[in-house]
Amino acid sequence: MDLTAIKDPSFLKGLSNEQLEGLSQTIRDFLIEKLSKTGGHIGPNLGVVELTIALHQQFNSPEDKFLWDVGHQSYVHKILTGRASQFDTLRKYQGLCGFPKMVESEHDVWETGHSSTSLSAAMGMAAARDIKKEKSFVVPIIGDGALTGGMALEALNHIGHEQKDMIVVLNDNEMSIAPNVGALHKVLGRLRTAGKYHWVKDELEYLLKKVPAVGGKLAHTAEKVKDSLKYLLVSGVFFEELGFTYLGPVDGHDFEQLQENIQYAKKTKGPVLLHVITKKGKGFHPAESDKTGTWHGTGPYKMETGDLIKPVSTAPSWSGLVSNTVQQLARKDERIVAITPAMPVGSKLTDFAEEFPSRMYDVGIAEQHAATMAAGLATQKMKPFLAIYSTFLQRAYDQVVHDICRQNLNVFIGIDRAGLVGADGETHQGVFDIAFLRHIPNMVLMMPKDENEGQHLVNTALHYDDGPIAMRFPRGNGYGVPMDQSLKEISIGTWEVLKEGSEAVILTFGTTIPMAMEAANELEAQGISVKVVNARFIKPLDERMLCEILDKNMPILTIEEAVLQGGFGSAVLEFAHNNGAHNHVIERMGIPDVYIEHGSVKELLNEIGLTKEAVVDKIHAITPKKQKRA
Amino acid sequence: MDLTAIKDPSFLKGLSNEQLEGLSQTIRDFLIEKLSKTGGHIGPNLGVVELTIALHQQFNSPEDKFLWDVGHQSYVHKILTGRASQFDTLRKYQGLCGFPKMVESEHDVWETGHSSTSLSAAMGMAAARDIKKEKSFVVPIIGDGALTGGMALEALNHIGHEQKDMIVVLNDNEMSIAPNVGALHKVLGRLRTAGKYHWVKDELEYLLKKVPAVGGKLAHTAEKVKDSLKYLLVSGVFFEELGFTYLGPVDGHDFEQLQENIQYAKKTKGPVLLHVITKKGKGFHPAESDKTGTWHGTGPYKMETGDLIKPVSTAPSWSGLVSNTVQQLARKDERIVAITPAMPVGSKLTDFAEEFPSRMYDVGIAEQHAATMAAGLATQKMKPFLAIYSTFLQRAYDQVVHDICRQNLNVFIGIDRAGLVGADGETHQGVFDIAFLRHIPNMVLMMPKDENEGQHLVNTALHYDDGPIAMRFPRGNGYGVPMDQSLKEISIGTWEVLKEGSEAVILTFGTTIPMAMEAANELEAQGISVKVVNARFIKPLDERMLCEILDKNMPILTIEEAVLQGGFGSAVLEFAHNNGAHNHVIERMGIPDVYIEHGSVKELLNEIGLTKEAVVDKIHAITPKKQKRA
Repeated sequence: MDLTAIKDPSFLKGLSNEQLEGLSQTIRDFLIEKLSKTGGHIGPNLGVVELTIALHQQFNSPEDKFLWDVGHQSYVHKILTGRASQFDTLRKYQGLCGFPKMVESEHDVWETGHSSTSLSAAMGMAAARDIKKEKSFVVPIIGDGALTGGMALEALNHIGHEQKDMIVVLNDNEMSIAPNVGALHKVLGRLRTAGKYHWVKDELEYLLKKVPAVGGKLAHTAEKVKDSLKYLLVSGVFFEELGFTYLGPVDGHDFEQLQENIQYAKKTKGPVLLHVITKKGKGFHPAESDKTGTWHGTGPYKMETGDLIKPVSTAPSWSGLVSNTVQQLARKDERIVAITPAMPVGSKLTDFAEEFPSRMYDVGIAEQHAATMAAGLATQKMKPFLAIYSTFLQRAYDQVVHDICRQNLNVFIGIDRAGLVGADGETHQGVFDIAFLRHIPNMVLMMPKDENEGQHLVNTALHYDDGPIAMRFPRGNGYGVPMDQSLKEISIGTWEVLKEGSEAVILTFGTTIPMAMEAANELEAQGISVKVVNARFIKPLDERMLCEILDKNMPILTIEEAVLQGGFGSAVLEFAHNNGAHNHVIERMGIPDVYIEHGSVKELLNEIGLTKEAVVDKIHAITPKKQKRA
Repeated sequence: MDLTAIKDPSFLKGLSNEQLEGLSQTIRDFLIEKLSKTGGHIGPNLGVVELTIALHQQFNSPEDKFLWDVGHQSYVHKILTGRASQFDTLRKYQGLCGFPKMVESEHDVWETGHSSTSLSAAMGMAAARDIKKEKSFVVPIIGDGALTGGMALEALNHIGHEQKDMIVVLNDNEMSIAPNVGALHKVLGRLRTAGKYHWVKDELEYLLKKVPAVGGKLAHTAEKVKDSLKYLLVSGVFFEELGFTYLGPVDGHDFEQLQENIQYAKKTKGPVLLHVITKKGKGFHPAESDKTGTWHGTGPYKMETGDLIKPVSTAPSWSGLVSNTVQQLARKDERIVAITPAMPVGSKLTDFAEEFPSRMYDVGIAEQHAATMAAGLATQKMKPFLAIYSTFLQRAYDQVVHDICRQNLNVFIGIDRAGLVGADGETHQGVFDIAFLRHIPNMVLMMPKDENEGQHLVNTALHYDDGPIAMRFPRGNGYGVPMDQSLKEISIGTWEVLKEGSEAVILTFGTTIPMAMEAANELEAQGISVKVVNARFIKPLDERMLCEILDKNMPILTIEEAVLQGGFGSAVLEFAHNNGAHNHVIERMGIPDVYIEHGSVKELLNEIGLTKEAVVDKIHAITPKKQKRA
C-alpha cells in the first residue's frame, strides 16, 4: 500500500483485521526508513501503530476528537490523515512538525509538546460539546509517564467528579522517557497482571453461593464482598475510585481486543479509562529492546544495524559537563543532592545516580514537586541541584517564586536546553526563562560562555550560600575548549571583557558570544573598534562595569538568544535609566514577540535575524559615521 | 491560663486530657476575641485547636517538623510556640504574619500561603533527614481542598513510591474555601463513614473460617479476600494504593483518639496518612454553621452576635463588577463559560453559577487544569472566562504560555487581586503578573481606571476574537463612579488622556491613577504642566500616542503597582529605544526587587515610596528647572 495516497482515515472502515495488520507492517517499515534519515521519536510511534489505526477505524475524526498527550507519538496519526508524503521534512525547517499542529490538518484538534495537558483540554472540549448539545467522542491518549504530572491528576479528579462522557486511552508502555517513577506506576503494574485474577472472581462467587444464608446481615456482607471483588480483582481500583469506568488491560497490538473494548467504551456513559498495554519500539529490534530511553527520540540511524549516526564531536555535551561537575563536587560535599523530573538520561545524571543512589531523585514528570522538594531539602541545609529543561521549568514558575525565592533558599537550578532547541520546535524552545526569572527577587541567573567557564559557574553555584542561583546552558555540545584542571569560583555579578574596543560595546552571553566576536573582528577590520563583554551574570548585572560603559557614553548593543520583552537587554535599559543615563544609545537584539517553530538552530537564528551580518549592520547604525580615511 | 505566658509547647507533655480540653477552650475564647478586632482566618483555626495541641504534645517541635499547608490554620501553633502576645498585631503592618514565618519562630520550618506545597517540602526534609542519618518526624498537615492541587498529588505519588517515613495529617474539614470539588472528595466521603464497616470485616473473617477447605486454590482465594477487606472495608483504598498506611478516620476534636493514632503513626514505617475529621469554625456558632465560606477568613466582627463589621462602601466590589458584567453578557452569548479554581465566593461567581449552572465550573484548587480546560473550551469556539487571582495565576504560567497563548486561543483571563493585597502579605501580593505575562506572544493585557471602564473592558474582552486577553483588577471595591447603562467596546491598544499637560507625562493605569492625578494637580498649582495618561493597555502599548509623546520629547514617568523588572515601565523603555528614541528621559516608579510583606495597602505603598509626594518629587527632578516668576 502506498501510504502517501492516503487522504483521510475513512478507508480504514472497510478493511479486515488482516488488512489492518498488513497496513501496520507497512507503516512500521515506513517509519523505520523515514526516521533513519530525519531522526524523530521512533520508539513511541512504533508502539502505537495498531492503537492509532484502531482509534481511527472506530471513531470519526475530526468530529470525534483525538488529543495526543505530549504529542510525539502522533506520527501514525499524521500518516493516516494524509501527511505521509511530508515525512522527508519531519522536524525540519518549515517541514512537518514533530507534534500535532492545527495548521497542518483539521484532524489535529489540540496541539501538544509539554506533557499532561490532554485531559484538561478534553474536559474543556467535552464541556463545550455538552453545552452545545452536540454528539461526539472526546478521546485523549495519554501515556503512563504523563499521568504523573500534577495537572493530569487535577484533571482526572475533576473529570471523575463531573462524570463527563469521555474515553481516556491510557497508553501504558511500561516506560516513559525514563523508567517511570511513582506509586501510580505500581498501581498500573498491578492492573497489568490483573488478568490472572479473573479465575479468583469466578471461584469466589461460587464460594459465596455456598455460604448458608444467615439473614439479611450476612447477605449484605456478601454484597459488599462482590463490590470489593469488582474493584480489586478485576478492575482498576485507582481509576474506579476517581469515578472512571475502567476497561482493560487491553493488548495494544491486538486489533480484535482493541476494537471490542473501544466499542464497549463508546457505549459506556460517563468517563471511561481504557487501559492499553503497548510495547515502545515494537517491530524494530534496537528500539524494542531499549532499556535506557535512547530510542525514545533519536537523530538519524542506520536502519540495518540500528547504529545511531552521531555527529562527531569530541566536546562534552553541556548536560554531561554540568552533571559531571556536580558529581565531582558531590564527592567532597555530602549536602549535594540531585533532582530530575523524569530526565535522568537527557540531563546525563545516570552516572551520578550510580555513584550516589541515595542522593539522587528522579521524581517523574512532576516539575512542581521537583522544585518544591528541592526547596524542602534546602531548608535542611542541603545543596539541591535541580536539573530541569528551560521549557519545563515554566511549569514550576510559582514554586520558584513562592517556595524557592521567597524563602531565599539555596537551590541550584541547572537550566538545560536554554535558548533555541531546534527540531522540537515552538513548544520546547527555552527562550522565556530570562524573562520569567529575572523579575523574581533573590534570584541569581547566569550563563557561561563555554564549557570551561561552565564548570567554574557550577562550582560557583554550589559554593554560593545566599539563596537561589540558576545557570542556563544550551542544548548540545560545548566547543571543545581546554578545561582547567581545578575548579574556581567566579564573583557573583562580574562580567568579563573578551575584547577591548572604544566605539561601541556588545553585551552578550552564552551561545551568542562567538557571533558577537566574529562581528567585532569583522568591524575591527573595517576600522570600527568594538568592545565585547561576556555578560555571564544576567542577574545581578555587573553594575560597576556597566557604569563605566555608560560613563564613556559608548553605544551599547545587547544580544540574547531569548525573548526581548523583559529580557537581559531590558535589564540594561532599566539600569541605564535608573542611573540617570537617559541619553544613551542602547539597542537590543534577541527573539521577537512570536513563537519560534522548528528547524535547525542556525536556520531559526537566520529567520529571526540573529546573525553576524545583522550585528555588523546594527553596530554600523549606532556608531557615529567616520570620515573615510584618505 | 494565661496564653501569653507560653514560651514553647513543652508544657503540654505534663497535662491531662482534661487540662488539654480546658486549654482548648481558652484558646478558642482567645481567638474569637482577638480576631473579632483584627480579622483573620477564624474558621480554619477554630477547627484545628485540639489537633494542633495533640500534635505539639505528641511530637517535639522544632526537631520534629510541622509543615502547615496553605498556612492560614497556623494560629494555634503560633499561640503554642510563644506568640500569643502578638495577636493584637495579626496581619497588620510589621505585626504577626497570618502564615508561618521563619523569622518569627524556630517552630516555623516551612513558609506557606499558596496551597499544596507541604508534601513536596516534606519529601525534601525527609530525604535530607535520611541522608544525614538523623531521626525526626516530618509532619505535613494538609486540608482536603489542598489535596486536589496537582503538586500535592505529584508529591503523594512520589512519597508513596519512595516509602519515606513521614506522617501526613489530612485535615478533612469537609469544606475547603468553597464546597470541595472532585472525585477525591467522594473518596474522602467514603472514608469518613468507614467506621461502620468494621463489623463487616469481623463477620467476613468468621464467614471465611466456616468455608470448607477445598485445597490450596481456595485457601489462596480466601487470602485474597482478606487482603481486599483490609483495603476496602477498613482502610483508605486510594491512599493505600498510592503506598501509604492509612489510619483513621479520627475525630479531630477527641484527644484520646488523636493521641492513640499519632502514637501508632509514629511506630509505623513508611509514609502514613492520618485522616483527621475536623469541624471548621468549631466552638463559634456563626463560623460553625457557615455554609458559604464567609467565615473562612473575615475582617473584624462583633463577637457577641457574629455580625461582620464591614467598611461602608456603596461602590461595587471589583470581583462583583467583573462577574456581573460577564453574567450580563452571558445572557446574550451562549458561548460564555466561567471557570474558577476553588474561588466561586471570592470571585463573586455564585450568582453566575445559579443562573448558568451548566456553564460554570468550579474545578477545585487546580489552577493548571483550570487554564488548560479554558483552552480546550476555546478550541470549540466557546468564550471561556477564567476567574483567577493574580497570585494563583502564577501556578498556571506554563499553561498560559504553552496552551492558551501558543495556540492563540480566545480565553478571557480575569486577573483578580492584582497589585498589593494587604493583610495576606507576601505570598499573596499580585505584583508579578505584568512581568510574567507581558513577554508571552499573543497576549493582550489591560487594566481599567475605574469600575465603569472595567465593565467596558470586560465587554471588550468578551467581544475580542483574536486570541487571549486578560484584564487585571484590584482587590476590594471600586470608587462608586457613575456607571454607563450600555456597554461599549474599547479599541485594543488605545490609551486615554486624563489631563493635558506640556512639560512631562505620567503614564499609569488602574489603582495608581488617582495618585497620579493628585500629583499632577498639585504640580499644576506649582506651575508645572503635567499630562496624565490612562495607559489601560499594558500590552499592546498605544504606540501612536507613545510616538507623539516621544516626538514632543516630554520627560516620561511611568507608575505601576507591580514589580519594576520587566514591567510596564520597561515596556515603555523598550519601545522608546526600539524606535530610536535613545535620548529621552524615562523614569519608572513601581515595586522594587524584594518581596513585600503584610500591612494595609496604604502602609505598603508608603514603605515602597509609591506616594503622591514621591511622584511630585520625581516630576520636579525630571522637568527642566523653571526661572522663578517674579
